[in-house]
Amino acid sequence: MELTKAGNFSEWYSKMMLEAGIVDIRYPVKGMPVYMGWGFRAMDLIFRQLEELLDRAGHDKLLFPIAIPESVFNKEAEHIKGFADEVLWVTHGGLTPLEDKLVLRPTSETAMYPMFALWIRSHGDLPIKVYQTTTVYRHETKATRPLMRGREVYWNEAHTAHATYEEAVAQVEEGINIYADLYTKLCIPFVVTKRPDHDKFPGADYTYAFDTIMPDGKTLQIGTVHNLGTNFSKPYDVKYSDAKGEMQYASQTSYGVSMRALAAVISVHGDSKGLKFPFDISPIQIVFVPIYSKGNNNEVDAQLKPIYERLSKQFRCIYDGSDRRPGDKFYRWELKGVPIRIEAGARDLSEGKVTVVDRNGTKQQVPMPDIDAQLKKIVEAYHEKLRSDAQAFFDSHIFEANSLKELLEQIDEKRGIIKAGWCGSLECADKLKGQTIAILGKERGVEKERKCVVCGRNGWEALLAKTY
Amino acid sequence: MELTKAGNFSEWYSKMMLEAGIVDIRYPVKGMPVYMGWGFRAMDLIFRQLEELLDRAGHDKLLFPIAIPESVFNKEAEHIKGFADEVLWVTHGGLTPLEDKLVLRPTSETAMYPMFALWIRSHGDLPIKVYQTTTVYRHETKATRPLMRGREVYWNEAHTAHATYEEAVAQVEEGINIYADLYTKLCIPFVVTKRPDHDKFPGADYTYAFDTIMPDGKTLQIGTVHNLGTNFSKPYDVKYSDAKGEMQYASQTSYGVSMRALAAVISVHGDSKGLKFPFDISPIQIVFVPIYSKGNNNEVDAQLKPIYERLSKQFRCIYDGSDRRPGDKFYRWELKGVPIRIEAGARDLSEGKVTVVDRNGTKQQVPMPDIDAQLKKIVEAYHEKLRSDAQAFFDSHIFEANSLKELLEQIDEKRGIIKAGWCGSLECADKLKGQTIAILGKERGVEKERKCVVCGRNGWEALLAKTY
Repeated sequence: MELTKAGNFSEWYSKMMLEAGIVDIRYPVKGMPVYMGWGFRAMDLIFRQLEELLDRAGHDKLLFPIAIPESVFNKEAEHIKGFADEVLWVTHGGLTPLEDKLVLRPTSETAMYPMFALWIRSHGDLPIKVYQTTTVYRHETKATRPLMRGREVYWNEAHTAHATYEEAVAQVEEGINIYADLYTKLCIPFVVTKRPDHDKFPGADYTYAFDTIMPDGKTLQIGTVHNLGTNFSKPYDVKYSDAKGEMQYASQTSYGVSMRALAAVISVHGDSKGLKFPFDISPIQIVFVPIYSKGNNNEVDAQLKPIYERLSKQFRCIYDGSDRRPGDKFYRWELKGVPIRIEAGARDLSEGKVTVVDRNGTKQQVPMPDIDAQLKKIVEAYHEKLRSDAQAFFDSHIFEANSLKELLEQIDEKRGIIKAGWCGSLECADKLKGQTIAILGKERGVEKERKCVVCGRNGWEALLAKTY
Repeated sequence: MELTKAGNFSEWYSKMMLEAGIVDIRYPVKGMPVYMGWGFRAMDLIFRQLEELLDRAGHDKLLFPIAIPESVFNKEAEHIKGFADEVLWVTHGGLTPLEDKLVLRPTSETAMYPMFALWIRSHGDLPIKVYQTTTVYRHETKATRPLMRGREVYWNEAHTAHATYEEAVAQVEEGINIYADLYTKLCIPFVVTKRPDHDKFPGADYTYAFDTIMPDGKTLQIGTVHNLGTNFSKPYDVKYSDAKGEMQYASQTSYGVSMRALAAVISVHGDSKGLKFPFDISPIQIVFVPIYSKGNNNEVDAQLKPIYERLSKQFRCIYDGSDRRPGDKFYRWELKGVPIRIEAGARDLSEGKVTVVDRNGTKQQVPMPDIDAQLKKIVEAYHEKLRSDAQAFFDSHIFEANSLKELLEQIDEKRGIIKAGWCGSLECADKLKGQTIAILGKERGVEKERKCVVCGRNGWEALLAKTY
């Protein structure tokens, strides 16, 4: 029986990781896989897209150290409480115990903000908007899964400081817009919710989160944006003198997107043949497959290679002129998710044509002089279908429930995100948690009164789901 | 008195780090500075140049985990001996002691080769050539200096496996050629020596190293290439079945270039005004400075900005239209090392000309239609002078000594690299070490018999220096 992502997502996903060359999980530390060439290039390309968006919005790229002294880490009480159980501790250099133990950053608020305190003197130094693309560390005790949950997490984290709370609120909006742009480029549907208080970032005033729906109906959180208010600027002394010369604490935000962006691309777009990469983030964008017959390799290459060489100046291309059969080549590059294949045999070429096939299987003959112009349209159409297929799946996995019974039936039968009422109490949230159902929160821009699906009291509409 | 790098290199260097925005050393862990925006972009651009060279030579980019279990790390005896005193140990996750303690990689041989053992089955799987650009960790007890010696080192490390020792020998040559290409692009003079046995990489058969000479005459090691033979493949079981079906151990190499490449660029090219970046690695390549007078800003901008916009499509440009005086702008961008400045006032523009000034101070008026064509020549001439100035300094700091007395006089008076005889004994090397003089080794391609400068016995010519 064919292995499909709908039929057995977990097995399909593991197979993709290995066979498409994304990660190798056999590394001898749990939750720390090796990023293989193909997977790392794709992840790198995703983060370069994000970095471009952040650059354009005026963020500065830099790099902070990996280690935070215990004495510095321990300043914001909620933050410590949230992370204390899961940080990795560096305690020795050689055989010598360190005087001040070091935390491997689980996130960089506590690394960055003592330096912000040194950099900021007056309101003229604000705003500060910086980011880094790097790794963070958490001693996960839950089951790990490559690119979804691990002890080493590759991510991009942005951090900002502002003169007023209103500016921090506006910065949260900018962060949300940047991530929305990123996921639109990646053709990934998403919903943005305000996380309930019990699930916000430790130390934040509030947290907005992006979720998408995986093939098995569970949601994957693929980005978060936090308004930190003055919760960190007070203990870390991030303050400035305002226009009147009075000292004020800065208002801050932070936001991050991790390797889960790649997990989402693989899971949402892939099919039983393999991956489907959006054009801009595919390590190879166009594969050329010459169709040889009766040893006419030179003749075919002479006509097809010049096109390959011309397009290589603009795109990441590969010319697969190996001895394998065309079918084997198709199989290999489809598995790896290459979006466009250009194939041609002697007859096509003598007629001045090549065949362009996108990874959705859409096929068309294109006269050679038209390739450059047609390619743009073909890529647009490819993205359009990636996007509409993904959106159709996403939309068909959103349901409503008016009672706990309905909720439990729906979530197991139909799988996906359930709209239901919640009173806001931790007690009712815990009862849902007992059924492995999480409250994602109130959908952004949606305010709807609704009876709590657990206790029946007054409440508002929230999104609920089983989550990764 | 003006602060010059020749007069007081250490103070000049610290000033550059801070004022040009390279690193901030006030981070609260010794030897772990923050890479600031300008410095990190430049470093990133240097490593992208290197990665391009490695890609072209068929290396695959990937990323290995940061942590190596103690049980895996401890397999190659020489390697452990070399690193045991200076590795950082992760011992706890939260409050729980880890069963198998983790080493933060000081280099990645012991992380990568257990995976090589899984990836390699037959000779058809060879060669393997991979690299990663990442951080490594060493608990330095010596004085740290930003970009030169620290506890967190940003670098690019390449690792290979081959069927035969001869192929590993050839790979060492390829590694040397790649690094020579990199430093030629960066206009940095260097010498390549075979390190003496007592100073080779722990676990290597032999090590070649690149050194350049810093403004104070001390040498800085800026790259190393190791032939590991089968020293790691045996304990890590990296083997393959040969054409006859017999199991053979792979022969391996590894090579690395660190953030010291940026330290070299800053130190070798900088002057009392600030940095001088080679064009390809400068975060901003061209700064436009409009010369306003009597409020004619709009008029000047209307003519100069279109040039800025056109060149921005090809280069990293900035248009400094701020209110500051032109002299202040010049000062700022010279400090940051921007290679090309294009300036123009209303009169120049009305005559259809702009002034192009390179960071060496070479100035010329260029008619607007000729800018694109002239720019290429101007950048070439700029690099030519960077290169020849650096080479002249380098060449004038190489001396000869025929006795220990001569050696000690030369090294303190003239400063630089001394050619002198060495018998090859550790005893004589230790005597030199007592004078803080290191033996860099035999210069690559130079075999010359010479009496040992310490003991007078027969020996061969080696390069000696005080080193960073």
